[in-house]
Amino acid sequence: MTVRAAVAGASGYAGGELLRLLLAHPGVEIGALTGNSNAGQRLGSLQPHLLPLADRVLEATTPEVLAGQDRRHDVVFLALPHGQSAAVAEQLGPDVLVIDMGADFRLADAADWEAFYGSPHAGTWPYGLPELPGARAALEGSRRVAVPGCYPTAVSLALFPAYAADLTEPEAVIVAASGTSGAGKAAKPHLLGSEVMGSLSPYGVGGGHRHTPEMVQNLSAVAGERVTVSFTPVLAPMPRGILATCSARAKAGVTAESVRDAYAKAYADEPFVHLLPEGQWPATGSVVGSNAVQVQVAHDSAAGRVIAVAAVDNLTKGTAGAAVQSMNIALGLDETTGLSTIGVAP
Amino acid sequence: MTVRAAVAGASGYAGGELLRLLLAHPGVEIGALTGNSNAGQRLGSLQPHLLPLADRVLEATTPEVLAGQDRRHDVVFLALPHGQSAAVAEQLGPDVLVIDMGADFRLADAADWEAFYGSPHAGTWPYGLPELPGARAALEGSRRVAVPGCYPTAVSLALFPAYAADLTEPEAVIVAASGTSGAGKAAKPHLLGSEVMGSLSPYGVGGGHRHTPEMVQNLSAVAGERVTVSFTPVLAPMPRGILATCSARAKAGVTAESVRDAYAKAYADEPFVHLLPEGQWPATGSVVGSNAVQVQVAHDSAAGRVIAVAAVDNLTKGTAGAAVQSMNIALGLDETTGLSTIGVAP
Amino acid sequence: MTVRAAVAGASGYAGGELLRLLLAHPGVEIGALTGNSNAGQRLGSLQPHLLPLADRVLEATTPEVLAGQDRRHDVVFLALPHGQSAAVAEQLGPDVLVIDMGADFRLADAADWEAFYGSPHAGTWPYGLPELPGARAALEGSRRVAVPGCYPTAVSLALFPAYAADLTEPEAVIVAASGTSGAGKAAKPHLLGSEVMGSLSPYGVGGGHRHTPEMVQNLSAVAGERVTVSFTPVLAPMPRGILATCSARAKAGVTAESVRDAYAKAYADEPFVHLLPEGQWPATGSVVGSNAVQVQVAHDSAAGRVIAVAAVDNLTKGTAGAAVQSMNIALGLDETTGLSTIGVAP
Amino acid sequence: MTVRAAVAGASGYAGGELLRLLLAHPGVEIGALTGNSNAGQRLGSLQPHLLPLADRVLEATTPEVLAGQDRRHDVVFLALPHGQSAAVAEQLGPDVLVIDMGADFRLADAADWEAFYGSPHAGTWPYGLPELPGARAALEGSRRVAVPGCYPTAVSLALFPAYAADLTEPEAVIVAASGTSGAGKAAKPHLLGSEVMGSLSPYGVGGGHRHTPEMVQNLSAVAGERVTVSFTPVLAPMPRGILATCSARAKAGVTAESVRDAYAKAYADEPFVHLLPEGQWPATGSVVGSNAVQVQVAHDSAAGRVIAVAAVDNLTKGTAGAAVQSMNIALGLDETTGLSTIGVAP
Repeated sequence: MTVRAAVAGASGYAGGELLRLLLAHPGVEIGALTGNSNAGQRLGSLQPHLLPLADRVLEATTPEVLAGQDRRHDVVFLALPHGQSAAVAEQLGPDVLVIDMGADFRLADAADWEAFYGSPHAGTWPYGLPELPGARAALEGSRRVAVPGCYPTAVSLALFPAYAADLTEPEAVIVAASGTSGAGKAAKPHLLGSEVMGSLSPYGVGGGHRHTPEMVQNLSAVAGERVTVSFTPVLAPMPRGILATCSARAKAGVTAESVRDAYAKAYADEPFVHLLPEGQWPATGSVVGSNAVQVQVAHDSAAGRVIAVAAVDNLTKGTAGAAVQSMNIALGLDETTGLSTIGVAP
Repeated sequence: MTVRAAVAGASGYAGGELLRLLLAHPGVEIGALTGNSNAGQRLGSLQPHLLPLADRVLEATTPEVLAGQDRRHDVVFLALPHGQSAAVAEQLGPDVLVIDMGADFRLADAADWEAFYGSPHAGTWPYGLPELPGARAALEGSRRVAVPGCYPTAVSLALFPAYAADLTEPEAVIVAASGTSGAGKAAKPHLLGSEVMGSLSPYGVGGGHRHTPEMVQNLSAVAGERVTVSFTPVLAPMPRGILATCSARAKAGVTAESVRDAYAKAYADEPFVHLLPEGQWPATGSVVGSNAVQVQVAHDSAAGRVIAVAAVDNLTKGTAGAAVQSMNIALGLDETTGLSTIGVAP
Repeated sequence: MTVRAAVAGASGYAGGELLRLLLAHPGVEIGALTGNSNAGQRLGSLQPHLLPLADRVLEATTPEVLAGQDRRHDVVFLALPHGQSAAVAEQLGPDVLVIDMGADFRLADAADWEAFYGSPHAGTWPYGLPELPGARAALEGSRRVAVPGCYPTAVSLALFPAYAADLTEPEAVIVAASGTSGAGKAAKPHLLGSEVMGSLSPYGVGGGHRHTPEMVQNLSAVAGERVTVSFTPVLAPMPRGILATCSARAKAGVTAESVRDAYAKAYADEPFVHLLPEGQWPATGSVVGSNAVQVQVAHDSAAGRVIAVAAVDNLTKGTAGAAVQSMNIALGLDETTGLSTIGVAP
Repeated sequence: MTVRAAVAGASGYAGGELLRLLLAHPGVEIGALTGNSNAGQRLGSLQPHLLPLADRVLEATTPEVLAGQDRRHDVVFLALPHGQSAAVAEQLGPDVLVIDMGADFRLADAADWEAFYGSPHAGTWPYGLPELPGARAALEGSRRVAVPGCYPTAVSLALFPAYAADLTEPEAVIVAASGTSGAGKAAKPHLLGSEVMGSLSPYGVGGGHRHTPEMVQNLSAVAGERVTVSFTPVLAPMPRGILATCSARAKAGVTAESVRDAYAKAYADEPFVHLLPEGQWPATGSVVGSNAVQVQVAHDSAAGRVIAVAAVDNLTKGTAGAAVQSMNIALGLDETTGLSTIGVAP
């Protein structure tokens, strides 16, 4: 079976990473590629690392182009600005697999959506983080997928086993640093190389970041009670990668062994999550270009906390890899097809 | 008055930064410079950025060299490996100002020292973080100074106003990322440029870092009760800078205003600590080469936490700048002499 | 004597670096600061590293503001887009020292100007590279100064001694890599941190870069014949610094000794140019934030070429430091006042 | 057919990159992995990005281990220090394909070898740069391959079409900047992250770099006369990538068109060399992790030179990718098997 895929937003970082993965996917044929302000341009000038697609020309992002002639596209990936996916998806029909790499369908709570995004809630689609309890089943056969945010991916995978095993109090404290590609390709002064190299800076401090309610949603579902999240994102001087350092107060009776057991059990059968041997800690450099997640956890008995760290590539497992992994599940392909656990290092 | 200064450990990063500052200090004459394995080498080959000292040759680190002919050195700065300062200081006599940039005399609790450093406790000297309550007075006229660790400097300045004003519970959670110079100049594989560029990695997770008891000591003294500290250090892909993201649960009745007032009051008269205007967050790139500290604080009412962030240059305010600031106070010079609040950016 | 200085273009990288230097200059009082689109904003939000000026508000760039109330400014620095300096300078009167950090008055040849900049030639002012033969004398007492381009500064200082001593053929081959601040602070996609980190890329290859005729002008004047220049600039993943690797075929009879002698003689009395000891090569990291130039030269007898390398900080000696150095000369101050040869490393 | 491969030197950067590629090669089964000082360690601690091999343990580098039980290895890759390959290869027998990623068998001229490497010449093996005239044929069926140096790969591919078409004089001037992985994984102070980030520095200037005679050999063979090479390598602040800027004086009658035609013709059928469209220049960031080479060329009529630039990943096409490409050819597999032209960007 060959799956024919269209990509809306092919000139950005998420779109570029998706195309890199799709080119290596043995079951995918790349169909229409669309851009917005870049329609009409060669992909070779916009994504010079994608040599096999260098002569492709971006088309305008319309439902007709995305559906394809005679509705030939089986999958449509949407890497669009927030708020634009619903209108496009509606016109694609229920038989096309639509995978939204934006935020529109991630949150179940309409009030949360409106508070953080300031527009009407579009709805909720099956959530493309198959490692979460219940998520994989919801993706099977689905024709709609909401790809998680990059920070919530790292944070949820770092912490959910602790909540699933009832090891931690429902107040999580998270500091997560991201490479600059997470901020996108639109030229803004604070994202200039001159500004970011040699500097670390937090932003959206104090609960304002839009990924916060998504973390609350994921962790609360696992914990069976509302988990509050203190989330501080930090912009780091590197193109790719998220390092999420997460902690919560340990419940009574928790030990180093019970913590490790919980994580070992949670990830025993997961193809992309790698619990490191004791004493080895994740490094974002080890997962660049890979769909792998490196996780490690410790029990700090003096401070009374469980500390879990996850490293992901924000563009791969954090965005485009999750999209491909979800596509594989939705279409009944092997979940790992076209995805690698091997990083490009150093 | 001209102060004659000797520097032990002139070939390392702390020693180099100290020399950079002393060269710009109008009241200091640079005397003997010593190294260990580098004795006999030109400073120009070891610290090629210090052009005015390029032809100086490193001497061996002996008490005689550090005291100077006819005991002419007024100040001796020690940038030595942990455990070596006490023996040297003893032989320098009580009239020489000895400023230890190592850890030996930072901790008041001998058991803490032994648990974290594994050697007998050498004692406790006045602590070179003048912004802490009581610290400045203890430094005045002293002939011994213990320069704080770089992480404890950033963390203590981020959090002490919250504890001083009784705003926060005594459980601090800290994630602090540091540039690589904090790990020193000894060649180790994990510090190679190939390894660190493009990667973020935590280390010493779970309470094991030697700077943890120093943070506990500083915050507890201000809080008037024992503050536990969960501290996760992260190695970041940049040469200089520490960004400390610190939080603690807010006590009842705390508001955004009460938090801001506490910080504004704490730092109103401090020449090197700059509380940023509301909404602007620290960036390590803004304090490179400067003795300034950028601080910002927020109250996250949803998570119930006070979040404070500080940015320092680990080599300047985090080490060598603190040494010079302490020297100024100890000798009765203007505290800011030879120190700048201006960063080298971009 | 206190010199009162105004700065047009205070929000950009050149303007920010100039302010950093002027703040450390004992004879300068900083007057009006102007911006264009940023007029009305606090400098603290635009240049957060310049703490002492954080509360200054940018004014509009008008001749009245730049002249100052009662024409009180003695010096006006112009960091404006190309083509705007002449009109401003005319209205400032002949008694004000006007230092143009743009390109408008660098080239003597009107045809060169028009070919490379596409606008009418504004004229030629004394050239702010005092190390070039004759340049220092022309700056003394002048009330107009054209600050050199950053690449021509590095290249001219690397190569002019070889031409002055008639060691090399008049065909220079230059590859010079620059940090990203040389491209300015305007947000453009190819200057995003995500794009520049981890990547080296040439631009303006084949003679098209606007700094080429300036190099030809400088080297030809010294050589006494037209020197052709093959110049390839490269964008490098670092905020600051230029490394210029320059070579030309050696004339008959040239030896390693004659080459070294020529450079030693040329720079024996220059306060800012440091000919490194044999075998040590320049590194841009050693001159960050400094007005120093590191130079080294070799004779490759197998290839028959003289190879000279210079490292400068493009913002300091390459722009703002040269402006201050020229101001000092023009006003009869000590040439080195307020300038340092000490880099901020690592 | 499945090829069983052993790798000597699996803990270094070249070995790690080779394993990354072999893991993705559908026709290769990875056999013994050996190290030297690292024998006995888990690969997961040495190469944490190679998750599928995390539990492999390094063996000692002996002929027996490399041959494999019952001589089962079909291919042995040697990533050993210079001078060690000959002794190992001899004991492996003539039927095993031995691919030397070191320098030992690259140079045809024994005097060149001895002058630059200071040891007896081991011999000359077919040269693993199939794009050079005649090289591909020599590799077919060979059981010995000398993988080219990383700089000579970039430089030869940038310049040989100009010499093949008789467009340029036999004096090439080359400045090539490399990421730090080219210097290997041995911990040396000048390769520390603190030293390399934010800095560019040349080394081996004036003809001393060991890759110089290899460039001379390659270009001279194509030109049919001795080509002199002035080569300046530069260490750049990035982990991977080489940007080679190469030029030579244009012969009479050369035009922009004749230059472009020569390159278009040379690379029309090469799967890994991509001549960029006019006006677009190579960037190392576009070829990270890829076996592709980006090439562009210009004729600078004012300076009278042809300027050619190539970007490669020093670890992939510059080392391990060339090894796999050569293996494919030697064994009669499709040349592109297991190799990608897609970079990991940004």
